[in-house]
Amino acid sequence: MGYVKFPVDLLDRFCMTAFKKIGFNDDECRTITDVLLLADLYGIESHGMQRLVRYHKGIEKGIIKVDAKPETVFETPVSAVVDANDAMGQVVGRKAMEMAIEKAKNTGIGIVSVRNSNHYGIAGYYAKMACDAGLMGFSGTNSEAIMVPTFGRLAMIGSNPLAISMPADPYPFFFDASTTVVTRGKLEMYNKMSKPLPDGWALDKNGHPSNDAADVLSNIVAKNGGGIMPLGGSEEQSGSHKGYGYGMLCEIFSSIISLGTTSNYCMKGRSGICHFFAAINPAIFGDAAAIKEHLSTYLRELRESPLADGHDRIYTHGEKEIIATEDRKQNGVPVNENTVVEMIRFAEFVGMDPKEYFGDFKPGESNMFNQNY
Amino acid sequence: MGYVKFPVDLLDRFCMTAFKKIGFNDDECRTITDVLLLADLYGIESHGMQRLVRYHKGIEKGIIKVDAKPETVFETPVSAVVDANDAMGQVVGRKAMEMAIEKAKNTGIGIVSVRNSNHYGIAGYYAKMACDAGLMGFSGTNSEAIMVPTFGRLAMIGSNPLAISMPADPYPFFFDASTTVVTRGKLEMYNKMSKPLPDGWALDKNGHPSNDAADVLSNIVAKNGGGIMPLGGSEEQSGSHKGYGYGMLCEIFSSIISLGTTSNYCMKGRSGICHFFAAINPAIFGDAAAIKEHLSTYLRELRESPLADGHDRIYTHGEKEIIATEDRKQNGVPVNENTVVEMIRFAEFVGMDPKEYFGDFKPGESNMFNQNY
Repeated sequence: MGYVKFPVDLLDRFCMTAFKKIGFNDDECRTITDVLLLADLYGIESHGMQRLVRYHKGIEKGIIKVDAKPETVFETPVSAVVDANDAMGQVVGRKAMEMAIEKAKNTGIGIVSVRNSNHYGIAGYYAKMACDAGLMGFSGTNSEAIMVPTFGRLAMIGSNPLAISMPADPYPFFFDASTTVVTRGKLEMYNKMSKPLPDGWALDKNGHPSNDAADVLSNIVAKNGGGIMPLGGSEEQSGSHKGYGYGMLCEIFSSIISLGTTSNYCMKGRSGICHFFAAINPAIFGDAAAIKEHLSTYLRELRESPLADGHDRIYTHGEKEIIATEDRKQNGVPVNENTVVEMIRFAEFVGMDPKEYFGDFKPGESNMFNQNY
Repeated sequence: MGYVKFPVDLLDRFCMTAFKKIGFNDDECRTITDVLLLADLYGIESHGMQRLVRYHKGIEKGIIKVDAKPETVFETPVSAVVDANDAMGQVVGRKAMEMAIEKAKNTGIGIVSVRNSNHYGIAGYYAKMACDAGLMGFSGTNSEAIMVPTFGRLAMIGSNPLAISMPADPYPFFFDASTTVVTRGKLEMYNKMSKPLPDGWALDKNGHPSNDAADVLSNIVAKNGGGIMPLGGSEEQSGSHKGYGYGMLCEIFSSIISLGTTSNYCMKGRSGICHFFAAINPAIFGDAAAIKEHLSTYLRELRESPLADGHDRIYTHGEKEIIATEDRKQNGVPVNENTVVEMIRFAEFVGMDPKEYFGDFKPGESNMFNQNY
């Protein structure tokens, strides 16, 4: 299965038009498009255009409510709980992080927990919002259960990513990762490419290691058992209980404190997905500029520390995203051909002419956008 | 190398007397003793009596200053930065968490970052303090560098544990783990037992995997290269960059925001170790009792979820510590014989009669406290 590269502008126009057709207003379209494109620019392909099919299905089934009105159900100067009322995750997510940032500017810290939402894209988008405002940013979300707790065989916890961003020079610290070894999106990509999964990623329905992406994914959907291992694998010796613990940390700030739906009940009838957003002003610890410089120095020292045999570079978190963005802005965004087919269906679903964006694209055939990747 | 079991009371008396002899006041002795004993009661042997030798050496060398006066160098209603001025970690740690708890009671959230401290024992002790006060508790610390960043070969980051505790029934959520695959203490124990390290734990001085605990430990001390892998191992495929990221999260809250010493400079001349302490009142998100019940339900569902083939129990975080505590209160605390030898030397150093505690103990010989373990 090949890749097709598209100019960023074309994907931007495609998303803006598609979400407008669905009924989102201009601001909402801008937010949803920005979140999706940031994932593709950062090279997090699993959360970019690849996700459109999920939004397509969610809107079609009424799980994502285009006209939902999120409401704040509890609030203090440092905190809030928002009920998304089944809104699109990106739309309520952006508003919730704006609230957290506002609180952090006033009191130093803001934490907003959101319940009854939907998939919100990459957690890092929201952490980055706070960082762009000069603050420390944090976000995470639960999801349909895919993580199997240590010694269990049923997925009970989501991929539960935690994202952290903080200002630094020449680029911010930016960390965004699931607390599972890998995300479900990664399994979906291996499935699309018909590649066997690496060892140490997934469990079959009896709790034994599995390399079969299609089988694991279908078991997750059918809730038959099996799923993805926590970071640290499935044994305590390799730290399974630690990944499981970080997954719990994410669950606590998203579903527990909001009295929302824990991952094991997400996507049963309604989505129920919960998120959290936190912003902290570094100035509540002293000289924010000195703190930024201190972090920048440490990051530089990490990058410049001695290399392991056989490696030519040590990355600090956020560097790969900067490199990927430069590449994609210059050379276009690589999109899996299967994903393009899904985008064409999405276009047809919302009443757009796919030819306007994709010409006479057919999987496996070269066309004007096709480049080797 | 065998184990000797001692009654909790005897170890308590030993520590109280020893730290009193060194010059700590009654409150300080109580705190230091409680932190050490909690580790042994929880079965975290690496951070219990095993650590006495490190405190012994630290005090002897003047790295730990018994009469240090920690001072608050920056403060807001939600935050503080404390300079420990080389105080014993447990002493300043307890005070810092008390500040965080006080702030959380007043404003909802308190975060206190501490610089220029020393090893403070298990991070979980401080998280538990907040939990015991009905709050969400968090703590972490940097340390002498032992974690090798992904693709590097020099330890640049500490074991950097993160601890999280939150009220729940029948027992709290309690998570306390290094962001490395294992702690240095675990390597020290393998070294004491002359056992080869499991695969996936440590790197030699060139950045290759190593099973040689003695070699890895001596390289860490000499800063020759090598160290312990982040949670997730040494490759991105198994999530190395994630453990490295959680290590950075700990570094940010301990050494970065306090403008303290980053792990790569700790124990060079002075300790420089930094910690953080955070408390959050769940009532800032609504009904604290309902939140506690929601967490309790989810933890119960996790424990009762289907088991993997070959396993007979799923634990939630904090359960093993409850089980270990009951066992140790009933059957005594198992202490490695090498550690007992260190305790005897410690007693002699501070001018106590070791016979009063350990009788005619000799390694390898049975005595009144000796039991199979």
